[in-house]
Amino acid sequence: MKPIVTLEYCPKCGWLMRSAWMAQEILTTFTEDVHGVLLHPSEISGRFSVQIDGKKIFDRKEAGRFPEIKELKQLIRDVVNPEKSLGHSDKLPPTP
Amino acid sequence: MKPIVTLEYCPKCGWLMRSAWMAQEILTTFTEDVHGVLLHPSEISGRFSVQIDGKKIFDRKEAGRFPEIKELKQLIRDVVNPEKSLGHSDKLPPTP
Repeated sequence: MKPIVTLEYCPKCGWLMRSAWMAQEILTTFTEDVHGVLLHPSEISGRFSVQIDGKKIFDRKEAGRFPEIKELKQLIRDVVNPEKSLGHSDKLPPTP
Repeated sequence: MKPIVTLEYCPKCGWLMRSAWMAQEILTTFTEDVHGVLLHPSEISGRFSVQIDGKKIFDRKEAGRFPEIKELKQLIRDVVNPEKSLGHSDKLPPTP
């Protein structure tokens, strides 16, 4: 089976909407690459973490912030379809 | 583990957004009652079906329509927490 991306979010923190937005971004970009995105309300306050088939790829507490959507897509791409280009957003920032 | 509600939708039909909306409705109402909602892009054209732990509770082809959100919540409630009241939307329509 294709991988499942889990978005574990703290419902009391009001993070359902941003998680649902991220789910839509992920599903639009990786329609063919994933089995689906699981929105999972956490029982742990302040938790926002992203797992692929149970393996953590991002944790808000460890990072000290939420992921940028571009960054999140790159992290997911690296696991589910490493050859996939994410288009113009995938380029490195220009050297100053 | 608490039940997982799966929304299987046809991505080519453009049904991601309504599915993501339904996911948010379900997660707002059943935060404590479900493990989560899985948004699953179907490989079958025209498919929209809802499963709880793999057991189908609604299928667009069989019903000939999408579910009303109230109806969907009642179907889910009957499985995940039959005692739960869904508030004013849960009352029967008045007898004419």
